[in-house]
Amino acid sequence: MHAEIITTGTELLLGETVDTNSTYIARRLREIGLNLYYKTSVGDNEERTALVLRQGLTRSDVIITTGGLGPTVDDVTRQAVARATDRELLFSPQLWEQILARFAHWNREPTENNRRQAFMPEGAIPIENPVGTAPCFIVESEQGIIITLPGVPREMKYLMEHNVIPYLRERLDLREIIKARVLRTAGIGESVIDHLIADLMTESNPTVGLAAHAGQTDVRITAKAESESAADALIAQMEIRVRERLNDHIYGHGEQLLEEVLLEMLREGGHTLAVLETNSRGAIARRLGHVSGSADTFRGGLVALEAETLTRSLGVPNALIAQYGFYSCEVAAEAARRLTSTYNASLGLAVLGSAGEGEDVYGKKVGHTCVALQGLDKPILRQWDIGGSTNLAQIWVSTSALNLIRRAILDL
Amino acid sequence: MHAEIITTGTELLLGETVDTNSTYIARRLREIGLNLYYKTSVGDNEERTALVLRQGLTRSDVIITTGGLGPTVDDVTRQAVARATDRELLFSPQLWEQILARFAHWNREPTENNRRQAFMPEGAIPIENPVGTAPCFIVESEQGIIITLPGVPREMKYLMEHNVIPYLRERLDLREIIKARVLRTAGIGESVIDHLIADLMTESNPTVGLAAHAGQTDVRITAKAESESAADALIAQMEIRVRERLNDHIYGHGEQLLEEVLLEMLREGGHTLAVLETNSRGAIARRLGHVSGSADTFRGGLVALEAETLTRSLGVPNALIAQYGFYSCEVAAEAARRLTSTYNASLGLAVLGSAGEGEDVYGKKVGHTCVALQGLDKPILRQWDIGGSTNLAQIWVSTSALNLIRRAILDL
Repeated sequence: MHAEIITTGTELLLGETVDTNSTYIARRLREIGLNLYYKTSVGDNEERTALVLRQGLTRSDVIITTGGLGPTVDDVTRQAVARATDRELLFSPQLWEQILARFAHWNREPTENNRRQAFMPEGAIPIENPVGTAPCFIVESEQGIIITLPGVPREMKYLMEHNVIPYLRERLDLREIIKARVLRTAGIGESVIDHLIADLMTESNPTVGLAAHAGQTDVRITAKAESESAADALIAQMEIRVRERLNDHIYGHGEQLLEEVLLEMLREGGHTLAVLETNSRGAIARRLGHVSGSADTFRGGLVALEAETLTRSLGVPNALIAQYGFYSCEVAAEAARRLTSTYNASLGLAVLGSAGEGEDVYGKKVGHTCVALQGLDKPILRQWDIGGSTNLAQIWVSTSALNLIRRAILDL
Repeated sequence: MHAEIITTGTELLLGETVDTNSTYIARRLREIGLNLYYKTSVGDNEERTALVLRQGLTRSDVIITTGGLGPTVDDVTRQAVARATDRELLFSPQLWEQILARFAHWNREPTENNRRQAFMPEGAIPIENPVGTAPCFIVESEQGIIITLPGVPREMKYLMEHNVIPYLRERLDLREIIKARVLRTAGIGESVIDHLIADLMTESNPTVGLAAHAGQTDVRITAKAESESAADALIAQMEIRVRERLNDHIYGHGEQLLEEVLLEMLREGGHTLAVLETNSRGAIARRLGHVSGSADTFRGGLVALEAETLTRSLGVPNALIAQYGFYSCEVAAEAARRLTSTYNASLGLAVLGSAGEGEDVYGKKVGHTCVALQGLDKPILRQWDIGGSTNLAQIWVSTSALNLIRRAILDL
């Protein structure tokens, strides 16, 4: 059994829109064990859409279309499906009732154009759309199944979840479920993880795979089973084994960001935080400040490039900087301590990193960064052989700094 | 004349990769007046790729493929094209020479697998690839033209630019060029622009269109002509008319970011800048700090949420805050002045914005923001009816603040 996606919309061809609907549909189909073999984009043109539908029916068991179900003449999916399956388009009083009810609910008047949306190919199964005005439908032809969905991502996702996936599982007797769980790590390199779980990565069900981002690596566990609970059980068993190896390097799962997990930990612990940055140029503040509701926990901080600024804004004594140098653990420790009083925060993090010419995460000139965290039972001091202010360096330094606080709170 | 794109790669079907190659190719084809009618993605499977190639030849004049030209068994484009056009795959000593030369140049040894890459369908025209190892080719069949390109974006773009576009213009006698130029604005709403240039937007060549992003609107001028210079001339004439209406609201063009343009202006004027933020939570610092080479101009700054922090870190007198309130122009003006000395900067920008419950850019509770810029001939003070710390508010406040500095430097 395999499926294909047909997305309609001239904007998808003009290269001005990135098609995220297909990404979502592909993932959901994979979860129920339906392989996706083709994905076609076509403009808002009835003839060409009908052509790709006909070609799709020659090669796939299921075709899912998105878009082209609106009320305007540009919306050609209804006509194209009728044409591709040699059916009449018929007015459905039942669909029209649904549309009228929806408009009444919103206190709006349907236009004459909305009547178009009450037409379906003969024999089609309507899909009620409680989250929008465009009704969708399924045509079960002898050659294959065509399922039409709206192009609006929110509506499409709702109908995939509530109608299409249950329908496909039932209709095609799909007993296999494929589920995935992503464990998110920080502060450990991809090659180290690869080494630690190499044997797990050769197993076939669940499979274990890695995806590296700048400064972070995801571990994806994917299981096939006959039910969701069986897949969950397989994943849970493998997750235990992965966690045994990587334990506290795993900070979260799914789409969780390190900064979200950290802010939650700070909130639960009743902590507040202020941050001093140099070479990361506001990247740490931004990652924290960007999280919704962070204001009660992240108390702010500063980006400073010079010794004088530290003296003036935090009161770090000139003599201390003169004695140990700007990029020193002593200065970082003092700055972190003073952050807590200046910003009224229980924790102060100072990240003093060099940003000399040519310094970066990789390469010959790496620079160095001194980090201090004050406010827990004992001060935490670290030196990293890293510097520079490239984007990569900013991501690397900010991730490492956030992870340092996480580990310190967990007493690791 | 119309074209289609076929992208190969299982990852494109699994929904884990966003296909940006097609976006680029679609734009370039549009520039030479070749309409794109279909775009198909297919996995790394010879039979299925050959099938979509065959179907493509029945409906399009030109097919451009990306991917599947590497040295592994997963790379099936060569075989699929041969199969779809009923040709033999032949070893090309000339291509093999090119591959060997490339490897020699890099001091690397080709593997036996690399020999696969020296095969082409009989009669194919080789495209030399000076930026990678995968040679590409063109097959001119009676049904249509198939052009194969690598999947690596850098290589694909190079070959589109240097080989494919010139080839298609020559071979298909495409005399029409479509060019576009984007003018970028800030600090002016889409609806205001729409009103100001409504008449220009009804013209047909060049066309003028708008694209709104959060807090910024782009004006795109698109011209068709028989040569690049003629298209440029049409665009230039329209640009003059657009600029007459929008003049200083246009800060740049193409992909230029407001922060890049501002940093360049600051650098040229010999200015340095420090910033105090509240509700934008580091968004201003981040936008400036993110630009490569910004360190000599952006001197840093702070995110502060409390009056006490302003007093402690910038020395803003307690009495002043008590008298006028934290979110006041008086406090902003004093803070901006003190920023310049604390951060050793010629300009100080203080943005004090309220972030009360439910405040946002739109909606009933808008809040308010006081902004002060010190260091130019006279201080600049502004009040905006805007507040909140949602992402939209952070983008809106940071864009408005950056644009305020730009306009102040231009003495607008």
